[in-house]
Amino acid sequence: MTTESGEIPRDPETTVAPLRRLRLVLQYDGTDYCGWQRQADVRSIQQVVEDTLATIVGERPILHASGRTDAGVHALGQVAHFDTGSRIEPRAVKNALNARLPHDIAVAAADEVAPDFHSRFSVRRKTYCYQFHLGDFESPFLRRHYLHVWREPSIERMREAALALVGTHDFRAFAAETKEREDTTRTIFALRVRRIAPGIRVYASGSGFLMHMVRTIAGTLLKVGHGRLTVDDVVAIRDSKDRRRAPAALPARGLFLWRVDY
Amino acid sequence: MTTESGEIPRDPETTVAPLRRLRLVLQYDGTDYCGWQRQADVRSIQQVVEDTLATIVGERPILHASGRTDAGVHALGQVAHFDTGSRIEPRAVKNALNARLPHDIAVAAADEVAPDFHSRFSVRRKTYCYQFHLGDFESPFLRRHYLHVWREPSIERMREAALALVGTHDFRAFAAETKEREDTTRTIFALRVRRIAPGIRVYASGSGFLMHMVRTIAGTLLKVGHGRLTVDDVVAIRDSKDRRRAPAALPARGLFLWRVDY
Repeated sequence: MTTESGEIPRDPETTVAPLRRLRLVLQYDGTDYCGWQRQADVRSIQQVVEDTLATIVGERPILHASGRTDAGVHALGQVAHFDTGSRIEPRAVKNALNARLPHDIAVAAADEVAPDFHSRFSVRRKTYCYQFHLGDFESPFLRRHYLHVWREPSIERMREAALALVGTHDFRAFAAETKEREDTTRTIFALRVRRIAPGIRVYASGSGFLMHMVRTIAGTLLKVGHGRLTVDDVVAIRDSKDRRRAPAALPARGLFLWRVDY
Repeated sequence: MTTESGEIPRDPETTVAPLRRLRLVLQYDGTDYCGWQRQADVRSIQQVVEDTLATIVGERPILHASGRTDAGVHALGQVAHFDTGSRIEPRAVKNALNARLPHDIAVAAADEVAPDFHSRFSVRRKTYCYQFHLGDFESPFLRRHYLHVWREPSIERMREAALALVGTHDFRAFAAETKEREDTTRTIFALRVRRIAPGIRVYASGSGFLMHMVRTIAGTLLKVGHGRLTVDDVVAIRDSKDRRRAPAALPARGLFLWRVDY
């Protein structure tokens, strides 16, 4: 809370209050952002939300997210926490942020959490969703949030290939920019392929994902659905641990950080 | 069709071919346009589609739409026709336009029609749709195509008020910029209010609509739904023929030209 002159109030009761930890559930259309993480000279989600938050709580809190999202990737349920000495109610933080944030970022929920909650280290399960729009032309209304695909893939084949990726595997072949000694083993709890009205959604739930992993897996499943790769090919790519063998990562615009469970 | 040098071919067989009339069904996100009609110094749907069409058929055809849409209004089924001496197939026009048009305009269908078909004069029924998103915050994913409304209106009351507007009436009170002697009588065939997953849709079908009429009617129904106007008030506004008595037109972003029937 700032005074009318914009200064942080000197009231000792406010300044010595113990820090509280607040959690935000954020939605954003990532189209016009360089991704979650604050960087010099470009517009990031973190920077815009932190800067707006500062005008509300009268401090400059650091927002810790469940993970970074890449440039152009959207979120329906990104989770972030920050610590504050202010006594503002979570509900008021939500409403004030929604009134001041640009239209492509919104706060879906805000609550106070225990001091040992951590938006990144406490994650139990993350779910991403990749959206395909099927049709003989690209819809002007879906283009920001779906990848347009002309030819209908076989959902059955996509589901078969998905089964080869569920479980604990070394996903090095599906990840960008891995270091040689990096642990690239991850566990996918579920990889579901659903037909929805305008197309297909691929939901990937896991303990965590490597960079570009969901977009590369979505691209691999699409190739299987179109008959350009077999399920055996997918197993071979997985076991090769060779990034050059997997298809390219699909564009960011179809990808959503769908939800984070703790 | 142009030659490789970009000139229009001199082949007499092509140039003397009888004109054919082609019909396009267009979809567009109107957010970044000044509306349908070509105007100097601003970007219109008509200008962008006509200019793109010229690169394909090698002439400069004039596109006639079922009606103008205002700045920011979207279309899911705008219909337009043009005459061409080229022998290009409708399917090829569709695909070439979709390959060259900006991403916020698409051709959903193209076919050849009889020479007496006219996209405006042959209209039997036009349907507009106004979309409301209900929720305690504005969704970053719906904001371009829905008007956000915080408080849930009564659908029952909205439907009751809608009945007062169905039929043939003088809609002067609901229209912008009417001239005194202008005929402002129109017929609304149906005015439906539907609950959809993210909110409410108001569908208005009629022989034709006056400027701002659908957006003003949608705003009036919303006020009834929120208990700020009664059904009797709506009848009184309608019968007053006084623009100052009806609520303001709602923003363009929730409005779609949904379909046109012939």
